[in-house]
Amino acid sequence: MPKTQVIGQPLPRIDAVDKVRGEAVFGTDVQLPRMLLAKFLSSPHAHAEILSIDTSQAEALPGVRAVITATDIPEVDTYDPGHRFHAFLARRFVVFVGQPVAAVAADDLATAETALELISVQYRPLPAVLTLQEAILPDSPSVAHGHQTDSSESAAHGHTTVSSDKAVEKPETSPNIANRSIYAHGDVAAAFAASAVVVEHTYTVPTVHQGYIEPHAVTAHWDRANHVTVWQSVQGAFAARDLIADTLGIPRANITLNSTEIGGGFGGKIEGIFSPLAVLLAKKSGRPVKLVLTRREELIGANPAPRSVIRLKTGAKKDGTLTALEAEVLMDAGAFPSNWIMNVITTLLRNNYRFQAWRLEGMEVLTNRVSITSYRAPGGVNASFAIESQLDEIANQLGLDPLQLRLQNLALQGDLLADMQPQAWVGAKEVLMALAGHPAWTDSPPLRVGEDGLLHGRGIGMGSWGGARGPAAALAILEADGKVRIVLGTVDVSGSFTSMAQIAAEALGMSVEQVVMSKASPDYAPFAPMSAGSQTIYAMGAAVKEAALNLRAKMLKYVAEDMRVPETQLDINEKGVFVVGKPEQARSLPMVYQLGTEWFAEHGPLMGEGSARQRQPAPGMAATVAEVAVDSDTGQVFLTRLTTAQDVGQAINPLAVEGQIQGGSTQSVGLALWEEVMYDAQGRVRNPSLLDYHMATAADMPMIETIIVDTPGGDGPYGAKIVGEPSIIPPVAAVANAVAQTIGARVYDLPITPERVWRAMQAGL
Amino acid sequence: MPKTQVIGQPLPRIDAVDKVRGEAVFGTDVQLPRMLLAKFLSSPHAHAEILSIDTSQAEALPGVRAVITATDIPEVDTYDPGHRFHAFLARRFVVFVGQPVAAVAADDLATAETALELISVQYRPLPAVLTLQEAILPDSPSVAHGHQTDSSESAAHGHTTVSSDKAVEKPETSPNIANRSIYAHGDVAAAFAASAVVVEHTYTVPTVHQGYIEPHAVTAHWDRANHVTVWQSVQGAFAARDLIADTLGIPRANITLNSTEIGGGFGGKIEGIFSPLAVLLAKKSGRPVKLVLTRREELIGANPAPRSVIRLKTGAKKDGTLTALEAEVLMDAGAFPSNWIMNVITTLLRNNYRFQAWRLEGMEVLTNRVSITSYRAPGGVNASFAIESQLDEIANQLGLDPLQLRLQNLALQGDLLADMQPQAWVGAKEVLMALAGHPAWTDSPPLRVGEDGLLHGRGIGMGSWGGARGPAAALAILEADGKVRIVLGTVDVSGSFTSMAQIAAEALGMSVEQVVMSKASPDYAPFAPMSAGSQTIYAMGAAVKEAALNLRAKMLKYVAEDMRVPETQLDINEKGVFVVGKPEQARSLPMVYQLGTEWFAEHGPLMGEGSARQRQPAPGMAATVAEVAVDSDTGQVFLTRLTTAQDVGQAINPLAVEGQIQGGSTQSVGLALWEEVMYDAQGRVRNPSLLDYHMATAADMPMIETIIVDTPGGDGPYGAKIVGEPSIIPPVAAVANAVAQTIGARVYDLPITPERVWRAMQAGL
Repeated sequence: MPKTQVIGQPLPRIDAVDKVRGEAVFGTDVQLPRMLLAKFLSSPHAHAEILSIDTSQAEALPGVRAVITATDIPEVDTYDPGHRFHAFLARRFVVFVGQPVAAVAADDLATAETALELISVQYRPLPAVLTLQEAILPDSPSVAHGHQTDSSESAAHGHTTVSSDKAVEKPETSPNIANRSIYAHGDVAAAFAASAVVVEHTYTVPTVHQGYIEPHAVTAHWDRANHVTVWQSVQGAFAARDLIADTLGIPRANITLNSTEIGGGFGGKIEGIFSPLAVLLAKKSGRPVKLVLTRREELIGANPAPRSVIRLKTGAKKDGTLTALEAEVLMDAGAFPSNWIMNVITTLLRNNYRFQAWRLEGMEVLTNRVSITSYRAPGGVNASFAIESQLDEIANQLGLDPLQLRLQNLALQGDLLADMQPQAWVGAKEVLMALAGHPAWTDSPPLRVGEDGLLHGRGIGMGSWGGARGPAAALAILEADGKVRIVLGTVDVSGSFTSMAQIAAEALGMSVEQVVMSKASPDYAPFAPMSAGSQTIYAMGAAVKEAALNLRAKMLKYVAEDMRVPETQLDINEKGVFVVGKPEQARSLPMVYQLGTEWFAEHGPLMGEGSARQRQPAPGMAATVAEVAVDSDTGQVFLTRLTTAQDVGQAINPLAVEGQIQGGSTQSVGLALWEEVMYDAQGRVRNPSLLDYHMATAADMPMIETIIVDTPGGDGPYGAKIVGEPSIIPPVAAVANAVAQTIGARVYDLPITPERVWRAMQAGL
Repeated sequence: MPKTQVIGQPLPRIDAVDKVRGEAVFGTDVQLPRMLLAKFLSSPHAHAEILSIDTSQAEALPGVRAVITATDIPEVDTYDPGHRFHAFLARRFVVFVGQPVAAVAADDLATAETALELISVQYRPLPAVLTLQEAILPDSPSVAHGHQTDSSESAAHGHTTVSSDKAVEKPETSPNIANRSIYAHGDVAAAFAASAVVVEHTYTVPTVHQGYIEPHAVTAHWDRANHVTVWQSVQGAFAARDLIADTLGIPRANITLNSTEIGGGFGGKIEGIFSPLAVLLAKKSGRPVKLVLTRREELIGANPAPRSVIRLKTGAKKDGTLTALEAEVLMDAGAFPSNWIMNVITTLLRNNYRFQAWRLEGMEVLTNRVSITSYRAPGGVNASFAIESQLDEIANQLGLDPLQLRLQNLALQGDLLADMQPQAWVGAKEVLMALAGHPAWTDSPPLRVGEDGLLHGRGIGMGSWGGARGPAAALAILEADGKVRIVLGTVDVSGSFTSMAQIAAEALGMSVEQVVMSKASPDYAPFAPMSAGSQTIYAMGAAVKEAALNLRAKMLKYVAEDMRVPETQLDINEKGVFVVGKPEQARSLPMVYQLGTEWFAEHGPLMGEGSARQRQPAPGMAATVAEVAVDSDTGQVFLTRLTTAQDVGQAINPLAVEGQIQGGSTQSVGLALWEEVMYDAQGRVRNPSLLDYHMATAADMPMIETIIVDTPGGDGPYGAKIVGEPSIIPPVAAVANAVAQTIGARVYDLPITPERVWRAMQAGL
């Protein structure tokens, strides 16, 4: 492959100026004439029947322009009572605390808040299912019951997925098991019996919020009687439009969905689940309506990441060869099923390492808590915390080096995974070797008791993430001034437009400054997948490359005809198309544009289409070494050093890649040490503010070192692989293992709070 | 060719509901938060030097947010002092009455108007050139002088274009002849000498306004420090953007140009020449600024159609065979040259009919009047009024049927035109024959003196128009709900989107209801030519067809693979892709969409690209028969019957085509009988209101009968030819000839006012 000119250059974001100046328009910044502000009234009950809603007093309040309840929702064919999207206003039953019951649009926020107080709702409280242990009992009340009464279909169908070579049926024991999967292979009992060491524990991960800085924000405006324009902070413009279309029965052609700049999403804003409220209020009031969630509403009622309880049992031979794996995964989906994250947790327990036999049972369990959704590598942390903790314990018991233990058991290309499919090419070994040779690992371990009086230790963790690779399309259009415009429907959540400008520039043979990125709404753009699943560069970048190459080919063709020179003798740079070796024989880019636009043009306008579908997965492997200090009096853990290595293939923009690895690592440390949405016995959130919910900030972190590993694999543009998600997985386990190494005892529940550390020390010492 | 399903169906406009409800957003409807309103101060002098401008009092007026003069215009490389676009604010000299000198943006219109009164401008009046006769004198003051002082280049370069086989040089006689063209062939003197009849007259056409209902309207908003969004009532979104970019030195990527719905343009709003005022005021005020011209400002200072003085001399043999043609065309360009319209007038005098010899001299003359631009078939009426009047006079003198005289002299395919290029295929004969067999012509002529006491008569006129055929591009994108979205940058000025939806539906094999037309700004759309030159269906329609066919081909390919059926056995309808003869074996359109968007997809998203360049011209021929009644006491002319036949090839939407022919015919009647922008001796418009400037309305018109003629020719989509412009050309001459036939005398000056008719009757009888 010839050396690239633009790919691999560390570039600051092309949107940096707009953002630094505060000029970029985020969802919360949208202002329209006569715009109203919206608030919603939410359920104080985890489970109750709505007997009546009286909105008359609220409606009578001056300044209130519209009040809506479920009766305002149009009847649509696509209504699915078992889906959170359609429960944007509770119908007969409320099924979690925080579920919207009514909403108002008013001239100002104070009036809207007053109006909420004037809405009178009569509830009949019903028994709520709040714990996983309770939820899976055969006689547990059915969570789905409440919102299923309108439908004969049951979302909680409790079906069994058997994906491995040996089906193991299990009786359906509870109405709240929405989905169950079993992956089984080999003789697990025999493999355990032949093991030198067997470790078994139960690992819990709590509910956490995705932690985007900007809350959900959406503004809707019916600019014509049958057409609504929506501005929304959202990760997937097409997904957001489809949600509005399907929940409100609006034809897609009648919805313009402008995705704004977005202050983070991390999987929590893929569709922007609150948009139907704003759209419906705007319809009823006849005015533009903006809805921005408060942090409290975010923490109580948005769509956090799932908690899980994983019982895990692992065996190994004396030389460290892993033998058997047995797991039971309970994932709390909240009041509505999500289907796929539980499967990710269950299979990821198995998929990084080879085992002779395994039996993995996963259950998605419904409870009367807020429903969940993705958070950066959804389920990855849940699984990694369990298996990586257990591997460390095995290494410890066998007296083996934890990095070597991982190296010798890696599931590499061709090894069968949990679902009996062969592993793709992965850079797992290369990532571990990069750490093995790095000062983060080769430096002498910190003294157990430091000069600071704290205990010190080091730990390692590994993680993998498959990533998405959806179909994606883009256009490259030559402009009158010689710039090339890339038109695409992608939301730029993490600087991906800068990297895609690099891809386009490389393909065209121009400089990045020649490329203009145009984010188009689904009214104008060909399909773009959501900016999630780490697929933006891998999938959409491929479409951008294809579009740019197609444009380049047409430019060469047009100029070859115009100059009567063979195409093979032509090349392109930022000035124009020129004869190789004779740069004075050239057509400037504006002249090339005219070859497809002016009266004398022989051809149509110059554009290139890119419609891509990556054939190969490009899994991302990451590993982290963490060093911690522990105050033995209080149990408080201080992170002192963190190094994450990740195989990203070719880093299109190393600056952006480093930022991604540092961001993921920071979030992961937060999950390890601090974050938890805490619930009381009535299913109410106890800590719905950032004072009581400790999200990691720069002040909490040491400098995070990153190691970019570049291995082949996949068929991404210029050798790129997925980037965004893998880095959030391994630091949790690295920190947990560092703490265990430091205190000589282990915490099996996240977050690793001072109390838990102190208790573990008391028990273990 | 197989029979079409959708093409040729008369369909109401797909945007009818939005427009009838008043929901369509026109340029004047745009509202933004904190929006200011703009007014400009214009020159009271036809020619003067600006000695000083004091804006301090205006700036001090409460509510005034910005005042600009030429000193606020940034220095740009592309500055061209000889171009009207760049004279949006006068620099050192004003060169026509109405030229903007300063502009203000204020909280409301009243404040803006008051502020204008507070701006003090000191002028030194200079001699103004106001008549064509004066302008072409060798010692005439130079009109270009004023705005040329900043530049060494002279726009009034007076160069000579010789396009025929025989060059005839002429000394440059005046500084105000901006362009001169001579087309000459054969021995003119000999041909005249051999003629049985020679007719010579001078024909004048006055300045007229294009008569769009909505005035120029533009709103500009700097949404970021370096990015301006513009909403504009304009015919060419790309042209409008380029004008702003070039006059203000703004990179194209920093301009978003949203073309709004447009209340007519007819050539007068191709670029929307006032936009730099709004953009500059918005920049200076930091607020959105809207500028909407008043009718008075439109009639005084926009960009009307040119007046002309044509001396024409025609010879014919006794049998009616035309022999020689000699012409001198003076076209008044106003203060800035326009280059091409004069050539159109000059060549159109010759191009519909064969001559043995000709000498045509055209001069574009600068005067201190407002500069001119296109108006529906620019120059067509100027030429047609002269030559068609003269043909009628020849027929009359030779006692020949005027329709037959035209038939026998038609310049048909292969005949050499004024520029010695061969005539394309034209449906001229077919159009005349359609009239010849139509009751409009075969009915007994009206009694010379009717029962109403008025004089009656009938006349015929013919006209041709080449039309534009710019390169054009569009996209066809399959949507989630199975609709097909056509994305294009075209402004829909006349229902063309309905016709293009028909083209797309026909190409896809679907119904029109399945097609969604998406007008995209130049930020997202591939290049679209201006909606002018009758090219929208002919050129952009071809791109739409190509895009739809490409999409269809991909849909068939995807489904063939998915169903394992050969593509040749598949067909498409509005429900989906199905196996021919087995409609139960099908993939619904939403399923086909998923073949390019879902996880399981084998391919990228489904879209089709269309980038078209029509190779062949498809000239439009039109002919009109008019019947009039004349009050011999007052000279007033009443139009009693009008029938226009036009060759449009295949009418995509006959309803739209009829509307176009009726609209063009109505405008033409207005030009024939009523319209004239009248100037006083100081170059000031005397009738700047619709009370004094009589535009044709429905109340003035009889029902206009249309005859759609469909002949082959060109390479338009489904046999379509150009439509919009030809119908404005022949009615002027048909009415003039009907009047002449009625009163037995001829009016050589438009409009044919009662006074002129009365005077002609006095002279002729």
